[in-house]
Amino acid sequence: MKKKKKIFEGRSKKIYTLEDTDQLVQEFKDEAVAFEVTKPHQVKGRGIINKDISVYLFEYLEGFHIPTHLIKDLGGREMLIRRLEMIPAEIVMRNIVAGSLCARYGLEEGKELNFPIMEFYLKNDEHKDPMINQSHLVALQLAVPDEVRVIERLTSKINAVLKSFFFRRNLKLVDFKLEFGRYKNKIMLGDELSLDTLRLSHVVSETEPEKTSFRMVQPANEASYEEIKKLIFQVA
Amino acid sequence: MKKKKKIFEGRSKKIYTLEDTDQLVQEFKDEAVAFEVTKPHQVKGRGIINKDISVYLFEYLEGFHIPTHLIKDLGGREMLIRRLEMIPAEIVMRNIVAGSLCARYGLEEGKELNFPIMEFYLKNDEHKDPMINQSHLVALQLAVPDEVRVIERLTSKINAVLKSFFFRRNLKLVDFKLEFGRYKNKIMLGDELSLDTLRLSHVVSETEPEKTSFRMVQPANEASYEEIKKLIFQVA
Repeated sequence: MKKKKKIFEGRSKKIYTLEDTDQLVQEFKDEAVAFEVTKPHQVKGRGIINKDISVYLFEYLEGFHIPTHLIKDLGGREMLIRRLEMIPAEIVMRNIVAGSLCARYGLEEGKELNFPIMEFYLKNDEHKDPMINQSHLVALQLAVPDEVRVIERLTSKINAVLKSFFFRRNLKLVDFKLEFGRYKNKIMLGDELSLDTLRLSHVVSETEPEKTSFRMVQPANEASYEEIKKLIFQVA
Repeated sequence: MKKKKKIFEGRSKKIYTLEDTDQLVQEFKDEAVAFEVTKPHQVKGRGIINKDISVYLFEYLEGFHIPTHLIKDLGGREMLIRRLEMIPAEIVMRNIVAGSLCARYGLEEGKELNFPIMEFYLKNDEHKDPMINQSHLVALQLAVPDEVRVIERLTSKINAVLKSFFFRRNLKLVDFKLEFGRYKNKIMLGDELSLDTLRLSHVVSETEPEKTSFRMVQPANEASYEEIKKLIFQVA
């Protein structure tokens, strides 16, 4: 598998082309920007662990007939992926109030939502990834209405599958970010599903008052990344 | 019709209760804040003209089976309305790029959208009316999913009806803002439909290049308000 040319380098990943133009190599870096935190920080081993978790979760989702760009794990910090035509949007699904929801709407961190919130953001550095909705995606000709419906349906399904996956591991899925793309006219999940794009909280004893039951999983160093990886990989 | 108590005063309207607790009086002020302009300015006669246009358009929409809060015109600057339980959201429908769309996404003013953009904003002064979407309305328990679907359907229908109404008067409907509420479990259009909440442009000869064909209707003084009112009230 000879990498040809680096076509992208972001803060957490590099992308390389291959002889086969339908495929790419996605490499995970140690330096990364945690979800909604703008200051990057480097954690040794982070890239490998995030790649391991992404591969594990993509394979798990494939088992529920959710198409992803994963072809196979290449070991180390690399995975082989299908070359999607990415839709320049981030879809954020939220089950529990955290992060920007608090500041933007004055909601209390840790509150469980009766109904999940699905947000759309335009990937646009110059305009600081502004919030959009489904109608902007169509009006800006980034996706056709049928594709938007597929993205909404897949996002809801991924949420249901992952919520129960994590709950069986004594973790709550607070919120997560997805990116989708087209591959031979089919919408597939792209990007990554890692500790940089998933936010988890511990399930605390139900006898405690709700207010104190919110304890965010915040991996900070290699040991805590390893620990959460073990929690995720356990068969539950 | 004896007004009892003023229960609301905003920058463009006052609301009074009546003996009949199902009804209210909505009074239009001359001082107002034009759509997306934060500095209020007073135009003599503006309140009466905005009330006249609101009544005219609400009656027109009722003809298309779109329920509104209008009961009847009380003359002057007042209209009699049903007392809705308002949903604290503004719904903005956009057919042509203008206003905050330009700054937020870097789009060019005057561009006609192939597909209308329907935006939702939370009415919340403290958080500066932040953008939301349909899922926030449900998660924040401001509306149930069926009500959100009715609001979306009514907004699309109002857009279709008004676009053609204005086009027959040689005007293009650039964008407009709606507010909805519940009345005896039915979703109805509330608030106003006036020169403060509708943005119009002139239809310029099609032989001119598209770039110069966008000329916004910007009522600035009593004479221009009167002129636009005449344009709207003409039978076309």
